[in-house]
Amino acid sequence: MVDILILTAGGTIDKIYFDAKSSFQVGESPIGELLREANLTLDVEVRSVLRKDSLEMTDADRALLRQAVEEATAEKIVITHGTDTMVETGKALAGITGKTIVLTGAMQPARFRSTDALFNVASALTASQILPAGVYIAMNGRILDPRRARKNVAANRFELLTES
Amino acid sequence: MVDILILTAGGTIDKIYFDAKSSFQVGESPIGELLREANLTLDVEVRSVLRKDSLEMTDADRALLRQAVEEATAEKIVITHGTDTMVETGKALAGITGKTIVLTGAMQPARFRSTDALFNVASALTASQILPAGVYIAMNGRILDPRRARKNVAANRFELLTES
Amino acid sequence: MVDILILTAGGTIDKIYFDAKSSFQVGESPIGELLREANLTLDVEVRSVLRKDSLEMTDADRALLRQAVEEATAEKIVITHGTDTMVETGKALAGITGKTIVLTGAMQPARFRSTDALFNVASALTASQILPAGVYIAMNGRILDPRRARKNVAANRFELLTES
Amino acid sequence: MVDILILTAGGTIDKIYFDAKSSFQVGESPIGELLREANLTLDVEVRSVLRKDSLEMTDADRALLRQAVEEATAEKIVITHGTDTMVETGKALAGITGKTIVLTGAMQPARFRSTDALFNVASALTASQILPAGVYIAMNGRILDPRRARKNVAANRFELLTES
Repeated sequence: MVDILILTAGGTIDKIYFDAKSSFQVGESPIGELLREANLTLDVEVRSVLRKDSLEMTDADRALLRQAVEEATAEKIVITHGTDTMVETGKALAGITGKTIVLTGAMQPARFRSTDALFNVASALTASQILPAGVYIAMNGRILDPRRARKNVAANRFELLTES
Repeated sequence: MVDILILTAGGTIDKIYFDAKSSFQVGESPIGELLREANLTLDVEVRSVLRKDSLEMTDADRALLRQAVEEATAEKIVITHGTDTMVETGKALAGITGKTIVLTGAMQPARFRSTDALFNVASALTASQILPAGVYIAMNGRILDPRRARKNVAANRFELLTES
Repeated sequence: MVDILILTAGGTIDKIYFDAKSSFQVGESPIGELLREANLTLDVEVRSVLRKDSLEMTDADRALLRQAVEEATAEKIVITHGTDTMVETGKALAGITGKTIVLTGAMQPARFRSTDALFNVASALTASQILPAGVYIAMNGRILDPRRARKNVAANRFELLTES
Repeated sequence: MVDILILTAGGTIDKIYFDAKSSFQVGESPIGELLREANLTLDVEVRSVLRKDSLEMTDADRALLRQAVEEATAEKIVITHGTDTMVETGKALAGITGKTIVLTGAMQPARFRSTDALFNVASALTASQILPAGVYIAMNGRILDPRRARKNVAANRFELLTES
């Protein structure tokens, strides 16, 4: 059994630039490649569930993601996800017992030279090993409860509902 | 007088990702920052002329660019430009005497971890110092004549009209 | 009061290459710069305590580091440190009450294109917020107890004393 | 026949950090990997001739390098080399007819996030295609004649003998 299962669901973190179309699109997740540099001694599996901008994510998509979490044998699960609806997906995963689920993502694509992707994934992988069962968001260095968090689009960061 | 004048005209090379809009746009050119790493002993000036996807470039834009080249006191000029209409702009700059003009750009934004931007700019800066007056394209390691070159969109590279 | 205090003590993570001497040396820590990319919403302070290869660290150096931890008002403390004697320093910090102290470092300098530095620092910053008071090592994706950990030099990783 | 032959001779450009020995050493050249990003349409071959700090290079090493150049079927040859004795090696390659030989290197290892390696290699590859037969140095954005150039160690750059 793997120590941690990483489910990739798309979002900015996975964006690729297609010169032919002059546009960014969600591509194959670079998470596996990023983690090679970290020389992990954990047994981590990366599995692609969705490749969507999170604004386009439907209830059916969230049901699919919940099913993937429920069926996993791993008890520590990290989900990379678009930031715009990460809070919604976090709430939709409530009530799964016996599993520590940490959602994370990035404001800048992981393929950029300067990106928050690796920091956030490292933070989520670490949190998933320490926190009790439940659903969490790891963004901007903090661990938040999806029921009390929101993305502040203007400030480009996650914060508590009671902040700003 | 500067040794080489770099005029930035937008294109993929300058693209930034805006998370708030979930889209890329042409941003401030990263060329100056890229060149700091190279520890140049040349006196190079970077000046922004346009910030456009090259597919949106008009005749008026090309006239503006031509005017910037003609008015420059430098005799070696590098232009960073979108790849889709780089050949057209190259032709529109024909007939300027006494100046070596080298167009370049990138298929992947300069802000990516993996990009052809720095290679192409280095190639253009070098070519501008060696080649006789005229207009050239420096892409993919080669120096091409705009009148005999094209962007092969499918193969994502520049080549001679007679190739492929 | 800052949320987390980062004390830098030198080691591979901070290494710079000096071309003039054709050698590397411990330089100014790049941790602050690395963290800017992460867009943290935490209040983090970075303070340099030592600039040493950890093999050269003396008892007096460890006493200095312990004093810096004891005098800090922050309750969450991350220490970046050379890997060769990280375990020894971890043990030398035992018995400090009311503070969560996480040691981390890197096998490849933070200034490399490919490095484990950012992952490890992110992991340490996250662990310092969640774990109870005590001393920990965050390396290779895992959280270890210094009394039960060692650096496996041949395998270039940290592991439990009972492993390999 | 390849368009350009790249001979690697060691030097800072190829340096790797060995954590186990806490030292930098000349490693396998990363030039081939760097060039993949550039999406070249040139046919380039990379061949390792030496793996030395250039301060340790002997007359026998230079004879070996000269032989490799003379025996090459390619007429455009780039040599990556340590900076400390690049000028000496340039002079030792004088008198080879029918070949454009461009020496280059880096002040910071190619494996660093911030390095002059890619710029210099791009510059050398470009110059080798345009310049007439002879021996040149491509460093810091300029093309120099080895008989009239030197490394200014204090300023960490190449310049004309008559400068500074």
